[in-house]
Order: sequence, then structure tokens, then C-alpha cells
Amino acid sequence: MDYNTMCPKYEVAIEIIGKKWTGLIIRVLMGGPKRFKDIKSQIPEMSDRMLTERMKELESVGIVKRSVYPETPVRIEYALTEKGNSLKTIINEIQTWSEQWVDHCSASE
Amino acid sequence: MDYNTMCPKYEVAIEIIGKKWTGLIIRVLMGGPKRFKDIKSQIPEMSDRMLTERMKELESVGIVKRSVYPETPVRIEYALTEKGNSLKTIINEIQTWSEQWVDHCSASE
Repeated sequence: MDYNTMCPKYEVAIEIIGKKWTGLIIRVLMGGPKRFKDIKSQIPEMSDRMLTERMKELESVGIVKRSVYPETPVRIEYALTEKGNSLKTIINEIQTWSEQWVDHCSASE
Repeated sequence: MDYNTMCPKYEVAIEIIGKKWTGLIIRVLMGGPKRFKDIKSQIPEMSDRMLTERMKELESVGIVKRSVYPETPVRIEYALTEKGNSLKTIINEIQTWSEQWVDHCSASE
């Protein structure tokens, strides 16, 4: 195995999907484009400030696209890009693995 | 979607596989049981201290098993458990995704 091919890119990917709430936000958006308040209503424990921060991050790395529709009032929707949609398998696999192997809410068994 | 079923376990899983070097160590061990120095030789950029720390963590969460063979000199080998082996798909998927979508060594495009 050539470790150089794995190292930085793998860690960049993990850095993206590993941030608190990110997996959950992506899963919510897998249900289709959503407004801020619709995402929020599905993750009520997350603060508005945190969701704002995460959406900006996800937009900046090309996982989420923000669309502004010039209606009255203005409608703003967030949707997964192709890059974001392609995370589906990974996120579902992590979820499945964690349901099978993680017993408690800490990393230790 | 019931966010409660996703939240803490997903994050525990990410916490495990997201630590620096962990994905790489698990990939090296997918090649079969290895001694400390063999793992080290495949990841030369990682310090001994860091590898020691990670192996202890991976053992404590049941992903790696440490076996001591009472030979002269004593042989100590590390191997993936069933739990560890079951991470194979996830780690390979993250690797594949990152090769396709991550261009640079930072999270931004």
C-alpha cells in the first residue's frame, strides 16, 4: 500500500464528514432541497448559529449549494451537490456500522 | 428520519475513524496481523509515540487485539478484531470518495 495516496485526502474527507452535526445535516438534505428552517426543525437540538456555520462550511467545500429564489418573501434553499450526494454511501455505512458496534455514547466499549 | 437514532452513535464512530493516522493504521492491519515495527515501517511519517497512543486507543475500543507470544524474544502482534475488520468498507469508501472529490490538502475546493 502506498500510504502517500491515502494520507492527506482521506483526512480531508474525514475532516468534512466528521464535524459535529455534519453527517446529520447531509442526511436531512438527502431527502431533497430544504430551507434553513426545515433543516432546523429536523435537528432541533442544534443551534441556529451552529447550523449557519455548518451550512457555510458545506457550501465552501462544494457539498451544499445555496439557491436564492427572488420571490416575495425571498426563498432560500439548500441542496446537496453531486459531490454531496456521493457521500450517501459513506454516511449510511458509518451509521450502519455504529448501530451494530457502538453500544454507548462514548468511544470506549 | 429520527435524528435521535443517528446522532450519538454516528459521532462516536466518526470520532474513532477520524483521528489522525487511524484510517491508515487500520488499512495497514487489513493486510493481516503485524508487529509494531512493521506497522511503523509502513507509516514512517508517524512517530513511535503517536503509534503507541493510537494502538492503545484502538485496543480500548475493541478494534485491535494485541497478542503476546511467549517466545524469545517475546513477539507482540496487533490484529484487527471482527469489529475492526467491519470498518473495511467504510474506510475504502472514504478513500475512494476523497480520491474523486478532494483536489487539495485542505477541505476547501
